[in-house]
Amino acid sequence: MDDPNSRLLADETPLPDTIDARLRQQLTFLIEVDKLKTILRQSPLAADRRRENDAEHSWHLAMMVIILAEHADEPIDIGHTIKLVLIHDLVEIYAGDTPIYHPTMGADQAEREIKAAEQLFGLLPEDQAAEIRALWDEFEARTTPEARFAKAMDRLEPQLLNWMARGGTWQSPGITADDVRARKAAIGDASKALWNASLEIIGEGERRGWARPGR
Amino acid sequence: MDDPNSRLLADETPLPDTIDARLRQQLTFLIEVDKLKTILRQSPLAADRRRENDAEHSWHLAMMVIILAEHADEPIDIGHTIKLVLIHDLVEIYAGDTPIYHPTMGADQAEREIKAAEQLFGLLPEDQAAEIRALWDEFEARTTPEARFAKAMDRLEPQLLNWMARGGTWQSPGITADDVRARKAAIGDASKALWNASLEIIGEGERRGWARPGR
Repeated sequence: MDDPNSRLLADETPLPDTIDARLRQQLTFLIEVDKLKTILRQSPLAADRRRENDAEHSWHLAMMVIILAEHADEPIDIGHTIKLVLIHDLVEIYAGDTPIYHPTMGADQAEREIKAAEQLFGLLPEDQAAEIRALWDEFEARTTPEARFAKAMDRLEPQLLNWMARGGTWQSPGITADDVRARKAAIGDASKALWNASLEIIGEGERRGWARPGR
Repeated sequence: MDDPNSRLLADETPLPDTIDARLRQQLTFLIEVDKLKTILRQSPLAADRRRENDAEHSWHLAMMVIILAEHADEPIDIGHTIKLVLIHDLVEIYAGDTPIYHPTMGADQAEREIKAAEQLFGLLPEDQAAEIRALWDEFEARTTPEARFAKAMDRLEPQLLNWMARGGTWQSPGITADDVRARKAAIGDASKALWNASLEIIGEGERRGWARPGR
């Protein structure tokens, strides 16, 4: 490994080696994931004039799962869904954030993220590395009701922030309200009620000129 | 209500009123809690040169629950414990952060936080306001194994950050390593293994001069 990411945070100030080896591995991982707080997303905060970072975003999705779970079209295990959203962006610590409306970055996103998952989760004891990898794979595959609901939260949260910003990333170059609807459709795979609300929000944004008119 | 907190974020750009009333209440709450991302704690990040905010902190505690749950001395429900840490600092949106080593702010903390809980959770539909309030009360009371473990995470996380900062808030005016040990003892109520590791970290910090010697 020769990229700057190969230097672990915990290597700067190694934990006392009197700590049990397994726990030391776990704490090393938990220190490393502090980096998620430095990965900036495109979305502007509603409460401040700056962009959101991945840790804040992940926390917000977890809160949304707690409050909005009743709107899921299929029964979901809330605790499990929360785990999915808490870990879903960890790979961005090494792979970076790929903006949803970016024209080219999506091309090698999967490859970059799989490499990042191996590097980051590999810090954990083997059983836990496998457990976190399984959660991330589940989120990405969207074949369980929990993963579909988690993805819906991931799509809905920036939409609330864009609404509050009166545009936000809806105003990305070349993007129309129809593009926004197309990329947000995953919400409808998890909840008709939330998808309806989402369409109201995008539609009203379009009427007010916060998103370009659909083609 | 005549303080600046009485202005809701969602009042700045009200959601379309075509959205169902219950869901609108839920989304209004979920927008309001964006403010947690602006509440700064004393702890310095390990990954950047700035202080941590409450949303980042809450996310980090949830990750710690996932990874460290095996060290709990009593069996805990992981999903439930995660909920406790996700919501435990919400009241600080209106009550502010009370630094652990602050000489006087602790005096009226409980009163300020109860008022904040009523104001913030009251934005939710009644059943959910009661649910979130019950979670917060459980966290504060520490009478369940889940609440004790959640509190332990709340004490352990800044300790990892202080270690990485080679001092951090351990160096608060008038605080010695003995004071740190006393205020971190809640970790031992949840996990002997984590409390032992914690004592190793504080002890080594003391030896290196990152915390003042115990009296």
